[in-house]
Amino acid sequence: MTSKAEFSRTYILSAGEADARGLMPLTLLTKQVIEIATEHANALDIGYATLIESNFGWVLSRLSIDIDRLPCINEEYTLNTWIESFNRHFSERCFEMFDNCNRIIAHIRTTWVAIDYSSRQMADMTKLMSGGFPILDRKCPVEPCRRIVIADPDNAVADNYTFKYCDIDLNRHVNTVRYLDLILNQWGLEFHDRHNIAHFDIIFAHECYFNEQVVIRRGDDAQGMTVVEILKGDGNRAIASRIKWQARQ
Amino acid sequence: MTSKAEFSRTYILSAGEADARGLMPLTLLTKQVIEIATEHANALDIGYATLIESNFGWVLSRLSIDIDRLPCINEEYTLNTWIESFNRHFSERCFEMFDNCNRIIAHIRTTWVAIDYSSRQMADMTKLMSGGFPILDRKCPVEPCRRIVIADPDNAVADNYTFKYCDIDLNRHVNTVRYLDLILNQWGLEFHDRHNIAHFDIIFAHECYFNEQVVIRRGDDAQGMTVVEILKGDGNRAIASRIKWQARQ
Repeated sequence: MTSKAEFSRTYILSAGEADARGLMPLTLLTKQVIEIATEHANALDIGYATLIESNFGWVLSRLSIDIDRLPCINEEYTLNTWIESFNRHFSERCFEMFDNCNRIIAHIRTTWVAIDYSSRQMADMTKLMSGGFPILDRKCPVEPCRRIVIADPDNAVADNYTFKYCDIDLNRHVNTVRYLDLILNQWGLEFHDRHNIAHFDIIFAHECYFNEQVVIRRGDDAQGMTVVEILKGDGNRAIASRIKWQARQ
Repeated sequence: MTSKAEFSRTYILSAGEADARGLMPLTLLTKQVIEIATEHANALDIGYATLIESNFGWVLSRLSIDIDRLPCINEEYTLNTWIESFNRHFSERCFEMFDNCNRIIAHIRTTWVAIDYSSRQMADMTKLMSGGFPILDRKCPVEPCRRIVIADPDNAVADNYTFKYCDIDLNRHVNTVRYLDLILNQWGLEFHDRHNIAHFDIIFAHECYFNEQVVIRRGDDAQGMTVVEILKGDGNRAIASRIKWQARQ
């Protein structure tokens, strides 16, 4: 049963969308999470068209995913979304991914910030908060992502990359899913064949731009999870991400 | 009106799918062309499931696109496809892209080859040809792409690239649309802002693989169109493409 407080969409994973293992790539899941968040916000009148009247806009700030398994080729799957909580600066939006036996195969938590385009600062959403944010009394089991820190940065592995034309989206920033490509590309085919991602966190801290050269730094955090950071030329973190790998059967 | 000889699908361009100019990227158009070709072949019982019984499979060999304009954000558009002609080795499949005023905004011609996976040679499709290939008496105005040659290869501009994990598809080859990313990335944001692609040809000659380093060579052909080639380590052409640029208004 779907109320206005929930929004869902069903997809089929096409062969062309699958990764080298025949599974849904994390990049596609992220793209769809952003798309249905956008559609749900539009349906609630807290989407682009409403916010732009105040010169505000939503920005994805954090994304955390617990993955049991990912859909395979020609498999039907459904993503649903609801707002778990909000305040005048942030909105916690959660998602579940179901397979066609109605089993939950992934839980997703996102944090969205409204930006005031005039000041490039966080917007105050107080005046939009009456009625526009229906809350579902359903807890998402994914822990909010707090800090992501490489335990021993002096021994981190570094790579670099310069953003190209096809990396750029209509806001003239690097497209969100391209950061994920860059992160996943730090490992080869053979490693991905032997490992699944059981948990993934990403913090979008600063935007990157066309022709910008970044450093990709990789190490472990204090809990032994893999951390990948994307650092801007001035040393600021554009992106921090964390991966819990699991050996594939 | 749609018969079995035609297949169509309607889409809306989402903000996340748009390029830096707010338009449909050529990569997305190519992805959708491949997807509806696959769906139509499945509906005609000449798709993956049927061909694999003979250990055959379809491979996209050539793609040519005449573009009047590309859909913009939140615009609805429709792609339809039909088989224009076939013989025991090749199938010519054409497409039209309509905007929601039913105007044709792009014409597309593709050539598909059936491959015998046992021999890695062209398959003989004779036994599948009775009834499976309904032909529409509708001519696609896109000229078939013959040869693509850089007029002065000694003065071509060269770049290089090594294919990464996210470039690889479930066949363990480079994903078709990633070649287009690589081609389009030879120009910067400012050039793309000032130019549209009026015509695009691409020939898929040889597959590329994970971790393979290629040379991207760029020059003009004898007619002044831009040619981009992707060359394998042994000097063989993996990809040849040709672009007719048009100044944007």
